Amino acid sequence: MQFKISKELLEQIEQLIHQKNDKELEVLLNDMHHADIAEIFDELNIEEATYIFKILDSEITAEILLELEDDVREKILHGLSAKEIAEELDELDTDDAADIIAELSQSKKEEVISELEDVEHAKDIVDLLRYDEDTAGGLMGKEMVKVNENWNVLTCVKEMRIQAEHVTRVHSIYVVDDENRLKGRLSLKDLLTTSTKTPISDVYIKKVDYVKVDTPNTDVARIMQKYDLEAIPVVDEMGRLVGRVTIDDIVDVIKEEADKDYQMAAGITQDVEAGDSVFELIKARLPWLLIGMAIEIVASFVLKGNEVAFQKYTTLIIFVPLLSATAGNIGVQASAIVVQGLANGSLKEFSKNYFKKELIVAMISGTIISLFILLFHSIMYQQYQVGIAISTSIIVVILFAATLGTLVPLFLHRNKIDPAIATGPFITTTNDVFGIIIYFAIARLILGF
Amino acid sequence: MQFKISKELLEQIEQLIHQKNDKELEVLLNDMHHADIAEIFDELNIEEATYIFKILDSEITAEILLELEDDVREKILHGLSAKEIAEELDELDTDDAADIIAELSQSKKEEVISELEDVEHAKDIVDLLRYDEDTAGGLMGKEMVKVNENWNVLTCVKEMRIQAEHVTRVHSIYVVDDENRLKGRLSLKDLLTTSTKTPISDVYIKKVDYVKVDTPNTDVARIMQKYDLEAIPVVDEMGRLVGRVTIDDIVDVIKEEADKDYQMAAGITQDVEAGDSVFELIKARLPWLLIGMAIEIVASFVLKGNEVAFQKYTTLIIFVPLLSATAGNIGVQASAIVVQGLANGSLKEFSKNYFKKELIVAMISGTIISLFILLFHSIMYQQYQVGIAISTSIIVVILFAATLGTLVPLFLHRNKIDPAIATGPFITTTNDVFGIIIYFAIARLILGF
Repeated sequence: MQFKISKELLEQIEQLIHQKNDKELEVLLNDMHHADIAEIFDELNIEEATYIFKILDSEITAEILLELEDDVREKILHGLSAKEIAEELDELDTDDAADIIAELSQSKKEEVISELEDVEHAKDIVDLLRYDEDTAGGLMGKEMVKVNENWNVLTCVKEMRIQAEHVTRVHSIYVVDDENRLKGRLSLKDLLTTSTKTPISDVYIKKVDYVKVDTPNTDVARIMQKYDLEAIPVVDEMGRLVGRVTIDDIVDVIKEEADKDYQMAAGITQDVEAGDSVFELIKARLPWLLIGMAIEIVASFVLKGNEVAFQKYTTLIIFVPLLSATAGNIGVQASAIVVQGLANGSLKEFSKNYFKKELIVAMISGTIISLFILLFHSIMYQQYQVGIAISTSIIVVILFAATLGTLVPLFLHRNKIDPAIATGPFITTTNDVFGIIIYFAIARLILGF
Repeated sequence: MQFKISKELLEQIEQLIHQKNDKELEVLLNDMHHADIAEIFDELNIEEATYIFKILDSEITAEILLELEDDVREKILHGLSAKEIAEELDELDTDDAADIIAELSQSKKEEVISELEDVEHAKDIVDLLRYDEDTAGGLMGKEMVKVNENWNVLTCVKEMRIQAEHVTRVHSIYVVDDENRLKGRLSLKDLLTTSTKTPISDVYIKKVDYVKVDTPNTDVARIMQKYDLEAIPVVDEMGRLVGRVTIDDIVDVIKEEADKDYQMAAGITQDVEAGDSVFELIKARLPWLLIGMAIEIVASFVLKGNEVAFQKYTTLIIFVPLLSATAGNIGVQASAIVVQGLANGSLKEFSKNYFKKELIVAMISGTIISLFILLFHSIMYQQYQVGIAISTSIIVVILFAATLGTLVPLFLHRNKIDPAIATGPFITTTNDVFGIIIYFAIARLILGF
């Protein structure tokens, strides 16, 4: 059941392309799932991919388009005329078609729209282009089955059979009034188990979850997950039913959000991936590197200012990397737990109980680590007072890092900034600077240099 | 449409509980979604939550159980008798019921199973308990609509009406032979649009995606996402249809995987969250802190060994934090992109092209940073040769960190170890040690100390 591209398969396909053996290619590819063909496309060069694209049926190629890597799709679309693109889009659901059109240049966009054959479909797609891609409007599709509350089940079933022809998956049947305002829903199960003579108004469920066109996509995801929905209707400002969002779109939103948090923690600002260009990769990465550099220049001043101290007690300076790493690690751990707590709703704002718990965790971890260091330093260097200075300051720095790690994401969240930033390079390097300052201050207190 | 717990609502509920005003409570809560009531439960103390639990209908409470935080559910279940738990489970789908039973102690587990009223349901639940929770078997439920290939559509529709009574959501209709072997599927849409007189063998789709009971849950997630499925049938070793996995379970798998990667990057080994105990938090965090500490002790030896160098050229030592941070940042960036590439399949193994690109990114970023440092050092300290030594070694260390960051996750992946480890403390601290070694080696070459 699992498809894997083999070298042999790729070679066979490339050979058939060079022989222009369209028949064999069709036989070979027609048996494959479009998602698998898309994977093959990602491996071929653009001429080869375009060649295959043109011999396959538009029913399949339209689906392939959706599955391709962004850059491969862009190149393939570039090689197609507006009419050819329009043919692909005619096969797709409105939301998918709108997503692809949105990637085109303004002039090509208009050309393609004018070439769409199905006028209703074209109108729906144009309508969808109006919405911000990060909202329910940007996620929704127009394909759905809706019935009027004034019908009876018989009319309803007849109408539904017609509508269902255009809908790939029937999730729910929405009930609207004469003004197209969302009134409720009818489950498919009800349809299977209710007699056809019942009037709609008797059977429909008046309670229905919905979102508005401008609801942020992450909220839509949260709502659909929380209430375990596979589709949710979308209404406009007047409460009129304008579309529906399905769970597969939400899976993408969830993955994107998770990827973004992960990248933020790794110090990458934009949604880049292995396939992106050197320029895009640098654009996403260099800013954080430079911010980190600037903050660490401050650290160099702090060290320079304590030159006398570590000229006298060398072991002070050799534990600075350990201090930085430990503080950084504990700070990132603390932030990550807060960031995930905020994301899944288990943490909503500053909680004294949680903060207390974090400090206890830091205190215990810090004590264990600093006892190790004290022991190690005493055995290796026999300067007990310096050892005590180092291990004491390590505890304090760890407590400080845990505090910063807990409070910063909460502060960012309260100020509507993505708290995931707090697990990135900005905080780890800031932690470094404060850590080194605290370290030498405490050492000074104990050793009196 | 968005539910938010207000302080007033919580106070009102608590007051009604203390007044033992069951009627008012029922009126208030019956109007709410079970997921919302679960959120309220998470805020109440356990006596209050249990009080409400016992006055609500088991149809609602069973759903609430599923939505609760793990620790709250555990406490509530603890306060219920085996018979009471069995009543809840009778209301649930087999997969959800099995998940809850799996959390009970061995003795309670058996008691609860013996109290289940619906024998068929009980058999299905017990069957599900056999499977590893990280496999398709552990995810699947027994509720599905299946028809025999030898029936005609009329018999089929009649049978389906009966079966659909037990199935919350009808995703697909599976077609089996007399031995219960999966033969194909029938779409609901076909059902709506096909005449009832057609024989099943004429209409069913012979191509059907499926997974085996022992397919890992992450593979199930990948397959369902790739082929855009809302449900997938699960077969045993003999190809017999034993259950189905639905997309909502997959959403959970995807989130858990993403959370795990994020935590791994933050140096947290287990799936912990803000609500966990101090002990659990320390268990998940301390190991990484200790590993980081051990590796940084090596760094302290390297610094100690270079004491002569930085006693002579102080500015060498004051840029060590900058060096560590920059190398750490670029290493984590490189790893994160590889880890995500491996996860989404855009990177499958070592790719010379990608590695070259990463080195170019590192080279350009490194050159920019090192020119900054050279300029800064020249202005501040006027020791040009030391400045050149520092900035040259920074470039080399950055290239090294990018190499390690790219190769380590690929190496881990090839050896079936989770590559996400490579974005965690282990790599950043290892990077530190190597970075410091390289730094002083190059400085020695240039300055000749």
